Amino acid sequence: MTISEDNNDGLNERHRARMQRKKAVVDAKIAAATDVRGVLLVNTGNGKGKSSSGFGMVIRAMGHDMQVGVVQFIKGAALPNGATGEERFLRRFPEQCRFHVMGEGYTWETQDRTRDIEKAQAAWACARELLSDPSIGLVLLDELNIALKYHYLDVQTVLADLRARPAAQHVVITGRGAPPELIDAADTVTDMTLVKHAFSQGIQAQPGVEL
Amino acid sequence: MTISEDNNDGLNERHRARMQRKKAVVDAKIAAATDVRGVLLVNTGNGKGKSSSGFGMVIRAMGHDMQVGVVQFIKGAALPNGATGEERFLRRFPEQCRFHVMGEGYTWETQDRTRDIEKAQAAWACARELLSDPSIGLVLLDELNIALKYHYLDVQTVLADLRARPAAQHVVITGRGAPPELIDAADTVTDMTLVKHAFSQGIQAQPGVEL
Repeated sequence: MTISEDNNDGLNERHRARMQRKKAVVDAKIAAATDVRGVLLVNTGNGKGKSSSGFGMVIRAMGHDMQVGVVQFIKGAALPNGATGEERFLRRFPEQCRFHVMGEGYTWETQDRTRDIEKAQAAWACARELLSDPSIGLVLLDELNIALKYHYLDVQTVLADLRARPAAQHVVITGRGAPPELIDAADTVTDMTLVKHAFSQGIQAQPGVEL
Repeated sequence: MTISEDNNDGLNERHRARMQRKKAVVDAKIAAATDVRGVLLVNTGNGKGKSSSGFGMVIRAMGHDMQVGVVQFIKGAALPNGATGEERFLRRFPEQCRFHVMGEGYTWETQDRTRDIEKAQAAWACARELLSDPSIGLVLLDELNIALKYHYLDVQTVLADLRARPAAQHVVITGRGAPPELIDAADTVTDMTLVKHAFSQGIQAQPGVEL
């Protein structure tokens, strides 16, 4: 055996020992996690990936033959080139995915608070229907946090409707600036923290990436 | 006009003025972002949403009729209930999505460094094929960061292959512990920061959420 092989054997053996200890820790955590119920997830923060993570969970659920529902609160028909990629794609499955685009664009595009509030409330009525339907396994409320941040919707009403949903139903809520009351109520919260963004380096928002 | 209506009018007017200023800032940024090319995105950090965001971008691209490719580096056939939801779903579209599951489970499950290295290198060979095919608009390299973190792959080789890809191709790389060289090379980087996770509160990993 050469010295190099000997070193490699030692490395492999230490790797195995470390991974055995790690597996024991992970297995103990898995054994302790016995609760099965619908979870409430919140994706917030200034970085990329909040909505796209929600859409990833939508297709994950669809892969398990669950019915899903999507309500988009802010994003709307304002896109220069028509619908987003996720909307175009998911509208191919009307029997499995109910897709509702209820916004008219970001708040700085509409510049009309009264109209924004009307749209947010209509979107919430739509969300409430999904949240009261036990046949829907997962609901994505995209950019809801923006509507809460601007007080277009009452956070206590939203929380009450979330609490009253079917026990097995999962809900994903996205958008910057999630209010503390929602973070308290959620089971899983991720802050999508901006490290850097192509846009700041002069690269356009592009189909398949942002649109 | 009542005092309350008067207050509301003032609020609406201030909102409009603030949003006009915000729109000017956003529009200037959009006007400055004129570069159109394939972007390299990295999702790292300890929180939830790294892979699911990648899969959201996969369907976003598919909605724009792009061809896509997925290579899963670590996750593999180790799932107790078979394939993940995202795999089950995306395998429905073999004409638009090439889906390669090349891992055998997390490092603490396999506990075999030599075998992990072989699998990672086979997965990279598969990734390199996608990265040299200009008909593929977006490539998701799921959990590649784990393979880099454990030095199963050489980061300089990976970076050279990424640089050599077709100019319009987008690449999304996920996994904890992205190496600094990859973060430097990326256009967009998000740290999915853990705020809280259902698993730590005793809730099982569930189909449609984690699986």
